[in-house]
Amino acid sequence: MRVEIITVGNEILSGDILNTNTKYISEKLMEIGIQAHYHTTVGDIKESIIEATMFGLQRSDILIYTGGLGPTQDDLTKEAVCEVLDIDLELREDIVVLIEKIFEKKHITMPKSNLKQAFIPKGGEALPNAFGTAPGVFINYNNKLVFLLPGPPKEMKPMFNDTIVPILKNKLNYVIISKTIKTIGIGESSLEEKINDIIKNNKDLFIATYAGDGLVDIKITCQKQNKLEANERINIVLEKLDKLIGKCIYSHDGESIEKVVFKLLAKHKLRIGFCESCTGGLISSRLTKISGVSAVFDRGIVTYSNDAKIEELNVSETTLMKFGAVSKETAEEMAKGLLIREKVDIAVSVTGIAGPDGGTKDKPVGLVYIALASEDYLCALKFDFSGSRESIQNRVSNAAFNLVRKFLIEKNNLK
Amino acid sequence: MRVEIITVGNEILSGDILNTNTKYISEKLMEIGIQAHYHTTVGDIKESIIEATMFGLQRSDILIYTGGLGPTQDDLTKEAVCEVLDIDLELREDIVVLIEKIFEKKHITMPKSNLKQAFIPKGGEALPNAFGTAPGVFINYNNKLVFLLPGPPKEMKPMFNDTIVPILKNKLNYVIISKTIKTIGIGESSLEEKINDIIKNNKDLFIATYAGDGLVDIKITCQKQNKLEANERINIVLEKLDKLIGKCIYSHDGESIEKVVFKLLAKHKLRIGFCESCTGGLISSRLTKISGVSAVFDRGIVTYSNDAKIEELNVSETTLMKFGAVSKETAEEMAKGLLIREKVDIAVSVTGIAGPDGGTKDKPVGLVYIALASEDYLCALKFDFSGSRESIQNRVSNAAFNLVRKFLIEKNNLK
Repeated sequence: MRVEIITVGNEILSGDILNTNTKYISEKLMEIGIQAHYHTTVGDIKESIIEATMFGLQRSDILIYTGGLGPTQDDLTKEAVCEVLDIDLELREDIVVLIEKIFEKKHITMPKSNLKQAFIPKGGEALPNAFGTAPGVFINYNNKLVFLLPGPPKEMKPMFNDTIVPILKNKLNYVIISKTIKTIGIGESSLEEKINDIIKNNKDLFIATYAGDGLVDIKITCQKQNKLEANERINIVLEKLDKLIGKCIYSHDGESIEKVVFKLLAKHKLRIGFCESCTGGLISSRLTKISGVSAVFDRGIVTYSNDAKIEELNVSETTLMKFGAVSKETAEEMAKGLLIREKVDIAVSVTGIAGPDGGTKDKPVGLVYIALASEDYLCALKFDFSGSRESIQNRVSNAAFNLVRKFLIEKNNLK
Repeated sequence: MRVEIITVGNEILSGDILNTNTKYISEKLMEIGIQAHYHTTVGDIKESIIEATMFGLQRSDILIYTGGLGPTQDDLTKEAVCEVLDIDLELREDIVVLIEKIFEKKHITMPKSNLKQAFIPKGGEALPNAFGTAPGVFINYNNKLVFLLPGPPKEMKPMFNDTIVPILKNKLNYVIISKTIKTIGIGESSLEEKINDIIKNNKDLFIATYAGDGLVDIKITCQKQNKLEANERINIVLEKLDKLIGKCIYSHDGESIEKVVFKLLAKHKLRIGFCESCTGGLISSRLTKISGVSAVFDRGIVTYSNDAKIEELNVSETTLMKFGAVSKETAEEMAKGLLIREKVDIAVSVTGIAGPDGGTKDKPVGLVYIALASEDYLCALKFDFSGSRESIQNRVSNAAFNLVRKFLIEKNNLK
């Protein structure tokens, strides 16, 4: 069953806004076991919509349109699709009443232009819109299912979930289950080489990797007759991955690395503090995006300058002179300084050169030290990152969370 | 000239990630006067890429692909496109050397799989990749231009700007100029109402608004025979907007609000410090994303708990007891405390309830106080934000930057 999502809208083609509708529909389709086969976007031009519809009918079984159902002259989806399907539009008095009621509520007379929205393809079904004036449309055309949805997400989403999902679920005789394993500390190509045999020996599963700022996700997708069968197949692969690259896996269920760290800290009732130089508060702010963070985090500090490192964290001037701000020694003194000052259980420090300026031959852009101090433990790791300033900052924050994660797991094993 | 952007990637089809590449390319195309005609996304399946290529060649003059140039087995774009165009891939020794060098820098031997990336279509051009191992590809196929770009945005973006934009610019006989005006402190619908007459009276321009987390952008686009004519038309509208909503405009050239604040601070040689509660470091980290920030910023502090506010910023326990942590009084004491402690010129504090938990009837989620203190000035503003935790945090940080911006502009006027 091939599904194509067709977006109609100049604002998408011109890059003014992201195509979040298509992502939403795709994600929701995956949840019921359908992977979209094509995404297509065309402008608010009748010829383009006609062309996309003709291509779509050739190659897909289900067409889901968003956009172009509004009251204005450049809302043309219904008209174009009906032209291709050779179906007339008919004025539905019941829909006119519904639209009029919406305007009545706002104490406005319905503008004439909105009458356009009450025209429904003959033999088609009008899909109720709880949040706007444009009804959706469902047409069964020689067993090809055609759905027209409004563009505004707050209207589109409930309509998709309430009316289209049940129709599609009914047509399925299989399930697709997906599982995302999240890794850190291994590059995408090295990872692929390592798991190549697993990919080769499990051809009935789709296993793919996705990389971003030092993290690589492995997504395993399995299509079977029923959930049990699909889960069993996925679990066999999971066990193999755990054996092979278990140390790099930080999540088996799609959780972010900061969430994993947050949960570990909360579980062990430990409090953490950060002192950040080149990340400027990014690590603290990522942790603080989690609701309930106050259980493990009550303060952090950004020490961008040398003076700040000396005054706030008691880093010695000698260390800064001798080894420089970006050094193992400074990172360690920062972490120790924070540990003493903040009375936290774990103190993490970051110092590095995020670029694009400020690098030297000895200390190039991307050189970063991350240290972790606790009552009876101290370590500092050196990293050579590459990429833009923002990408380096992201990588540093990921690596810092990973350092905490590993420390907590090892600590746990010891007890 | 019809341009089609073809994205290759299961992660897009399954809705795992947003198609930001297509938005970026579309936006950049608009800047040089080209509106994309189609967006297409297909999965990492050879047949799908072949099919999309065949459709694309039928209906478009320029095909721009992203994704599927990696070293793994499901990177198939080059192979599929070459199959349709009936072009062989040949191993380019010069590219092998380039890729090997990238791995050498990281002290890793090149994995064999990366050799795949050194194969370039015969007669095609390899486009240099400054940030990764996958070269891009440019093929002129019977006057249809075919570009293959890598998927990771940090590799794709510079390659697109440096090599493809110049090629396309050469082919144009008109210009499109766009200008983005950035506003804060006015809602999207109020703004639309205010500028409605301007939109109506300038039908040869395309004027649209885009809202996000407390900011609204106004984009003005104009297509003319030459730059001068287009710029003149846009400037007339700009003057009208300045008169109407000048106080809400923080940028005329697309700069972020933190960049605007950074420049104002640098210009006046002022240093700033932040003490953040509910934003947890977000404000500091946004400023620190700017290269050269050390000129205006050397430290910040996150005081999430009451204890942290007392110990780090000398907020009085009585104030916290009497008015609560989320109050005008606490915000002011935080800012004053920071000003004294950090010897900065401007101290900004933030305290609020980001939610989703922690709200009460008197102090609901979204209630936020932002204070600014300087040697001879102190003010605190109250805000009622709504949205998700992340959205509220973003809105707070935007509002904090805006408070600094307004203070600096007024200060400047006084002198």
